[in-house]
Amino acid sequence: MAEQTVASTRAQMDRLQLELQDLKHAQGVEDITVGDYLLARLDQLQITNMFGLPGDFNLGFLDLVEDHPNIHWVGNCNELNSGYAADGYARVKPGSMGVLLTTFGVGELSAVNAIAGSYAEMVPVLHIVGAPSTSQQLSKPLLHHTLGDSRYEAYAKAYEQFTCCQKYLMNKETAAADIDHLLTEILVKARPGYMTLPTNLVFEKISGERLKTPLSHLPPPNDPEVEAHVVEEIVKHVMAANGGVAVLVDACAVRHDVTQELLELINKTHLPVYSTPMGKTAIPENYDRYGGIYIGSISRPEIREKLESASIILSVGGLRSDYNSGNFTYNFPVSRTIELHSDHTKVFYAQYPAIGMKQLIPKLTAKLEPFKETTQQIAVPQFKSVFPTEDTEIITQAWFWPTMGEFFRPKDVIIAETGTASFGITNVAFPPESIFIAQIFWGSIGYSVGSTLGAALGAQDRNLGRTILFVGDGSLQLTVQEFSTMLRMNLKPIVFVLNNNGYTIERWLHGKERKYNDIFPWAWTDLLKVFGDKEELRSKSYTVHNKKELSALLADEKFARADKMQLVEVMMDQFDAPVTLVNQAELSGKTNAYVPK
Amino acid sequence: MAEQTVASTRAQMDRLQLELQDLKHAQGVEDITVGDYLLARLDQLQITNMFGLPGDFNLGFLDLVEDHPNIHWVGNCNELNSGYAADGYARVKPGSMGVLLTTFGVGELSAVNAIAGSYAEMVPVLHIVGAPSTSQQLSKPLLHHTLGDSRYEAYAKAYEQFTCCQKYLMNKETAAADIDHLLTEILVKARPGYMTLPTNLVFEKISGERLKTPLSHLPPPNDPEVEAHVVEEIVKHVMAANGGVAVLVDACAVRHDVTQELLELINKTHLPVYSTPMGKTAIPENYDRYGGIYIGSISRPEIREKLESASIILSVGGLRSDYNSGNFTYNFPVSRTIELHSDHTKVFYAQYPAIGMKQLIPKLTAKLEPFKETTQQIAVPQFKSVFPTEDTEIITQAWFWPTMGEFFRPKDVIIAETGTASFGITNVAFPPESIFIAQIFWGSIGYSVGSTLGAALGAQDRNLGRTILFVGDGSLQLTVQEFSTMLRMNLKPIVFVLNNNGYTIERWLHGKERKYNDIFPWAWTDLLKVFGDKEELRSKSYTVHNKKELSALLADEKFARADKMQLVEVMMDQFDAPVTLVNQAELSGKTNAYVPK
Repeated sequence: MAEQTVASTRAQMDRLQLELQDLKHAQGVEDITVGDYLLARLDQLQITNMFGLPGDFNLGFLDLVEDHPNIHWVGNCNELNSGYAADGYARVKPGSMGVLLTTFGVGELSAVNAIAGSYAEMVPVLHIVGAPSTSQQLSKPLLHHTLGDSRYEAYAKAYEQFTCCQKYLMNKETAAADIDHLLTEILVKARPGYMTLPTNLVFEKISGERLKTPLSHLPPPNDPEVEAHVVEEIVKHVMAANGGVAVLVDACAVRHDVTQELLELINKTHLPVYSTPMGKTAIPENYDRYGGIYIGSISRPEIREKLESASIILSVGGLRSDYNSGNFTYNFPVSRTIELHSDHTKVFYAQYPAIGMKQLIPKLTAKLEPFKETTQQIAVPQFKSVFPTEDTEIITQAWFWPTMGEFFRPKDVIIAETGTASFGITNVAFPPESIFIAQIFWGSIGYSVGSTLGAALGAQDRNLGRTILFVGDGSLQLTVQEFSTMLRMNLKPIVFVLNNNGYTIERWLHGKERKYNDIFPWAWTDLLKVFGDKEELRSKSYTVHNKKELSALLADEKFARADKMQLVEVMMDQFDAPVTLVNQAELSGKTNAYVPK
Repeated sequence: MAEQTVASTRAQMDRLQLELQDLKHAQGVEDITVGDYLLARLDQLQITNMFGLPGDFNLGFLDLVEDHPNIHWVGNCNELNSGYAADGYARVKPGSMGVLLTTFGVGELSAVNAIAGSYAEMVPVLHIVGAPSTSQQLSKPLLHHTLGDSRYEAYAKAYEQFTCCQKYLMNKETAAADIDHLLTEILVKARPGYMTLPTNLVFEKISGERLKTPLSHLPPPNDPEVEAHVVEEIVKHVMAANGGVAVLVDACAVRHDVTQELLELINKTHLPVYSTPMGKTAIPENYDRYGGIYIGSISRPEIREKLESASIILSVGGLRSDYNSGNFTYNFPVSRTIELHSDHTKVFYAQYPAIGMKQLIPKLTAKLEPFKETTQQIAVPQFKSVFPTEDTEIITQAWFWPTMGEFFRPKDVIIAETGTASFGITNVAFPPESIFIAQIFWGSIGYSVGSTLGAALGAQDRNLGRTILFVGDGSLQLTVQEFSTMLRMNLKPIVFVLNNNGYTIERWLHGKERKYNDIFPWAWTDLLKVFGDKEELRSKSYTVHNKKELSALLADEKFARADKMQLVEVMMDQFDAPVTLVNQAELSGKTNAYVPK
């Protein structure tokens, strides 16, 4: 009810604002600054938090952010972390985006890895860079934060490699159109975009007229004639296969926001459906036609057998990277595969450019519904976490992950760091409406910590459940300071720190006993106290040494309620790894030998 | 004595190695791997420490590093910090360079800001990137750490913006020549260089023949005819000015290693000499012909008056950036300025390309020596730290910096973070043979922490004194985890953390009372315990609240001896700033207004 009141008050405010604008326009008044125009657009996209750090070329714009009624400034500890946070925020807010604000040169360049990660993993993020004034950008004085050789454009050139669209605002006449174009590109392409905002332009007055037309994140429409032909082709093949189709859901189904369309397809057709690691949670994992995670040759045998024996594989939003496909070991041919993508379709060998899945899927659903009597005969393996039979009190990877599976609740947001966490969690069945976040493709260690900050804030907006992070001690050292921002923002994530003395994923890839895979051991349970919560008013930390201790903690209702930030140090063996990781490392080693045989 | 024994044993080992190689060559044997060739070159350059993080494309090479007898692997907490560390290491090792090793994509991109900083500030750093195998680079599979669109070259393209030379090793035939070329460019240009090292190439065998010819960091020789003319011109002008010359030493005198030549010039000619902030410590600050720091209109009045009234200003290695020149307020005309640079010379309006200062200065010294009777008549202000007359027990910026000046000893390596530290320390007179490190031009906050790690290791190599860091609490949060690496390496820096509740430099630029300039307060004195020194075996932390407490600590011989890592939290007012910073901020505000008047 309170939510509805807020929404209606807000709608009323928006109407008043537009009325005021109309009046001003009638009088030919330029009524809004470039900075506020940008913020108004972000506000329309339901963006409630902006990440980043202050720096001398963005302080003016920051005044506007700090004074904005709906957008909150999250000052991060460093820029890389702010980029990760913007990415995590975007992942829990479909149709919206993450936003980070940095300063020229020194600030923006610290965030390149995060933005490149958002590009690779297809996450919509806007990177705003506070830049020198337009006159300085033309006269190019030897300012601090420049390279000393007048190449003011060097940073933007670097960013061209990692963003889908770039706008270098230089005059007020085109500023609004540039902003709108950039935001639309980010939304439609689900990739990061880049903008330089010169100090003086922030306060230039422009017309707010364009704000009346909301931005759309919908892709361009399919050509109806081609689309009809594609649907017909697919139906023909499904008929020939007597409905023997298995659906495989992948990353881009999530990123290009077709999960609703997909659920409708599955519901109405009763097709069996599987997911890749990067598609995990796109289909609720308790769904009765859902068979679990397919990762090529390192899948569970029953999943592999069922999926690969289907007459046709309908791949939705596929992203066949090494870690997402069991090192490229998919065992079904192109001649049996239909691929739906955001901007093209493939039916066996035939390619159909510009036929995107967002509009195609509903049409397929209508045509495939009649097959449901046949398709529901196809058995689907039940996806359940598997507990090991082992006789040890040590917390093993094999025991830890299914145990965590039982701790999860509907609507939890669950983040796993690249490494033992992302591999270990794959085969755990998640409850409905939960969200899974991991950087399985880009794989930048440390990502999950910044991402957790953003995801927790996004979860607040959507009224989701707990935010739960799994991170190894080695990865955590890269980005650890962002815990401080979580405390400052009064967020309440549960953080499981897997203490296994370093980079276990790398031990399995190479150098098992090498010193370079060790780290210096930290006093993890004192960390949050040092990072601003000395009296433990906002947080609590625990160490668990064995199964009994962990089980007791998980069973504690107060702990599970997550009403403050909680850090659990989980003692594990440095050579223990989930079986999926061990198998992946073995396959990778075959294609990328470190040392000559 | 022990040092001499080590040196002679090492020389003997080197001779044996060469002899062995000769023999192998006589038999046509390819005797060294590409990885070991690279390490042999780094070893020849007296590089003892390599910075970076393990990642799956550099693990094979890391085996060679870990097994190398003279080069030690410093595993950092993150890549940005490792880049800063390599920069700091290079700054205390003239003629050598800093080296960092990262992995493809995720690793290297986190270090871009550090490398761009080394580029801007002219610091020789080699960035080695462990890359996919040569066959993978050609076939471009969808590997993790790639962008998903086959652009394997994207990261290198970004790095082209920030490095003076790039080598993408792709075959063993040219590997040695490529390595040599890259290292030479880095040394001569004093800028970072970039190399991709594919996994398979590391262990390819090549000839070590080239290793017999050591690399040179000397610039190309000047054209003798043009050089003679330039010397003649300068001498003519000096004569006309009756010896009325003032020397102004700047950044590039340090970066291009002409401090010895410069000292000889000053010693033999008795010319008065001044320094910019970035040239600080190039000339020993206790030297009797040294007059102190010139920063345009914000210099001390007596320095400004003396320098600006000289008939000729001989500028050596000038880098006139805003923060290094009092926002471009030099008050002497081109028609009275002679500029010596690493690769060109300017005499008033005349430009002489390719006449570099390294060879020019000794020739000038010879010709200008006869003027010494005249020049030594020119009075030079004595450069002394100035204590404030104030009646407060609060630790003020005005009192803190001259107090620290009295704590410094010869051979100390002193690092100041951008902000109140770098501005406050400028007018403190340093003892002889001390080294000053700050990023006055690039100005990336957080830099000083990583840099301290590298500088402390470089100082060990050179048998220098204590390493002392001044860093604000805001800046420290960006890169704080590298304290852990200092503890692991058993380094003993003294760290002064200026606790003034956030980004004070930015408060003075804009947004004095804004929340975005605040930070979340940490328990600084518990930090080192959490970062791996729970029992305080390797470190000790202190808080000082007032002048009395700080004075007592500085007077404590045990503290001053620095036989463990020490962190001193210095409580200061959040609005207090050194007068140099206040003046600079005022000038910057005039050219870069944040909010319309």
